Amino acid sequence: MDVQEIAKTLENVRQANPLVHNITNVVVTNFTANGLLALGASPVMAYAKEEVADMAKIAGALVLNIGTLNETEVEAMLMAGKSANEHGVPVIFDPVGAGATRYRTETAKKIVREVNVSVIRGNAAEIANVIGENWMIKGVDAGEGNGDVVVLAKKAAQQLHTIVAITGKDDVVTDGETTYVIRNGHPLLTKVTGTGCLLTSVIGAFAAVESNLLVAAASALVSYGVAAEIAAKKAGEAGPGSFQIAFLNELARVGEEDIRQYSLIEQVK
Amino acid sequence: MDVQEIAKTLENVRQANPLVHNITNVVVTNFTANGLLALGASPVMAYAKEEVADMAKIAGALVLNIGTLNETEVEAMLMAGKSANEHGVPVIFDPVGAGATRYRTETAKKIVREVNVSVIRGNAAEIANVIGENWMIKGVDAGEGNGDVVVLAKKAAQQLHTIVAITGKDDVVTDGETTYVIRNGHPLLTKVTGTGCLLTSVIGAFAAVESNLLVAAASALVSYGVAAEIAAKKAGEAGPGSFQIAFLNELARVGEEDIRQYSLIEQVK
Amino acid sequence: MDVQEIAKTLENVRQANPLVHNITNVVVTNFTANGLLALGASPVMAYAKEEVADMAKIAGALVLNIGTLNETEVEAMLMAGKSANEHGVPVIFDPVGAGATRYRTETAKKIVREVNVSVIRGNAAEIANVIGENWMIKGVDAGEGNGDVVVLAKKAAQQLHTIVAITGKDDVVTDGETTYVIRNGHPLLTKVTGTGCLLTSVIGAFAAVESNLLVAAASALVSYGVAAEIAAKKAGEAGPGSFQIAFLNELARVGEEDIRQYSLIEQVK
Repeated sequence: MDVQEIAKTLENVRQANPLVHNITNVVVTNFTANGLLALGASPVMAYAKEEVADMAKIAGALVLNIGTLNETEVEAMLMAGKSANEHGVPVIFDPVGAGATRYRTETAKKIVREVNVSVIRGNAAEIANVIGENWMIKGVDAGEGNGDVVVLAKKAAQQLHTIVAITGKDDVVTDGETTYVIRNGHPLLTKVTGTGCLLTSVIGAFAAVESNLLVAAASALVSYGVAAEIAAKKAGEAGPGSFQIAFLNELARVGEEDIRQYSLIEQVK
Repeated sequence: MDVQEIAKTLENVRQANPLVHNITNVVVTNFTANGLLALGASPVMAYAKEEVADMAKIAGALVLNIGTLNETEVEAMLMAGKSANEHGVPVIFDPVGAGATRYRTETAKKIVREVNVSVIRGNAAEIANVIGENWMIKGVDAGEGNGDVVVLAKKAAQQLHTIVAITGKDDVVTDGETTYVIRNGHPLLTKVTGTGCLLTSVIGAFAAVESNLLVAAASALVSYGVAAEIAAKKAGEAGPGSFQIAFLNELARVGEEDIRQYSLIEQVK
Repeated sequence: MDVQEIAKTLENVRQANPLVHNITNVVVTNFTANGLLALGASPVMAYAKEEVADMAKIAGALVLNIGTLNETEVEAMLMAGKSANEHGVPVIFDPVGAGATRYRTETAKKIVREVNVSVIRGNAAEIANVIGENWMIKGVDAGEGNGDVVVLAKKAAQQLHTIVAITGKDDVVTDGETTYVIRNGHPLLTKVTGTGCLLTSVIGAFAAVESNLLVAAASALVSYGVAAEIAAKKAGEAGPGSFQIAFLNELARVGEEDIRQYSLIEQVK
């Protein structure tokens, strides 16, 4: 994967303006919609069992996020996921807080069991918990594990038959065979709520326009991380409030020039 | 309607600080509340069947928005709407995404059938779908129709016995007899989620202080559009994040001077 | 309580990065999470009956907020509250809109009856309504009462056996015996939705690291008010949008130096 392919995929999102159907948590709905709009995608949030199958089938991607899950919403996620599967719409899954409570862990496992997930994105603890590995988690933030994140990502990809993106200080994305490490991003992302959730939805926007989902996911991670770095340069010193606004600005602005200058992506074994 | 009448109505909102009861979607609740507060109104969100009738009757206006509808919430909307009708509180309705799924279309029709709606605001596709006309829609964003928006607005107003506001590049507002076209606003509004939903709630704030609802709706549209233009001048180049913040600032600041300078409202046949 | 003790408690929050479990309203979830992150705490929102007891017991504090209550959520609050009580986790309660509808008043009373609340924070009207005193309320904003706020706070603290914080132009915090009046803060806080709700969650973060809950609550009120004053100085003239962002920046930055310079806390009879 080279810089040009990443920039081209980003440009395709802006041109195609894909509809991204999100069933996500109440903390991040607004930020997710604004981030997708800034990027050039077209977000829709729809949760009711009466309509999720209809909405998912006309979308370019479906994003499922269990950040503030409840029984009704989980049923809607399964219905939407199955409808997406039937209609060839890629499903991106964010297992927020898997491992923090038994309910989250069980629900995350149920979703990957009943829906064909195309890409799963989480921190190391969440991904580990989805496949039954031990990893510490504190609330919905990753704790420190002592495993190797690349090994974990490949194992999860092989076990779940999906693209796996583990994000943290460095990001790892793999289909179980080919693996990339991405060193973009900025610590201020951890001071704004929903930056992980929005990234999952951004992967959805990329997956809607690029059928090679490893390329889609890696391009999303690089574009997102580069936008964050530029935003941090422009506004990071003022604090997390200003960074959040600058980041939305950069999602709308970031392009080939920036990706050429800042991208740090490397294929690893 | 002249500039002075518009500015006076805006000033009345700031003086009266009306309570606006919103039953709205989870994407825009925060932005709606902040926009109403900036403008000088007093927002309240209340959704539970146990309290919506009580809250609606003490409000200056009730705003119903089906952006992330579900069965329980729709029941609460009907209860609140009927309570508002009984107590002479104007009801403003935003049929978000009508036409995108059968469930949204049916629910929108049910609401206008069971509640006396004072003003309905949507894009052309949404309004068309509420009255059973064909119009393309993509997710919750308006597609391109080939009809005449003024004709559509008047037809909807006559059929629904309500004020109709269709917003888009130009806005149209009509009671079915008298019709205005408003050419204020800015394209950056489409890059911030909930600007349509907030506008509906802002119409609610104006309707709470001005019993001539055509004047109320037109004044709201002009004030909102002018605020957006000034915000775009001040911060638009930085991007949609900065524009969103500047827009909240301008909702708190916009006044007679600006409306005199920027308003573009014209009565049409 | 002196300036040094307040600054030390704030610093302890940043060092300990406590997990604060919020069951709060849909209007303010995002702002609450961002405010807690900016301050240096670790927010989690979890609402489902299947997990609230598990989440509350691992948290440093539990915050209950009835801003957009419904039956299911109230049940979850009671479950979470009882779990917190069993595990020695402090419970902070925000009775948003108590007095505005019968349902809110009854629910607020039920929560203080069934859960051992450590700190309750509201405006004068809300606190009055929780203990059955008369006070005018308009929507969810405090009306004007003619009672003495210090007397009301002490009465509520004695009756509820809890720390009571009544916020408004001046803030009062008391355990029923020792009472402080705090004159920090800024009127722009009333132009941003959720600043009261976030303050309640910030008290939660302080209560998670300081077992003297009167010190915790007073330190939170001073730190929060000082951050608001500095934010208003830096960005208040631009309007409420810019103030909101500057306030998040200041929550991340405010420290001993600022508290020494700006804090206005006084013990009263």
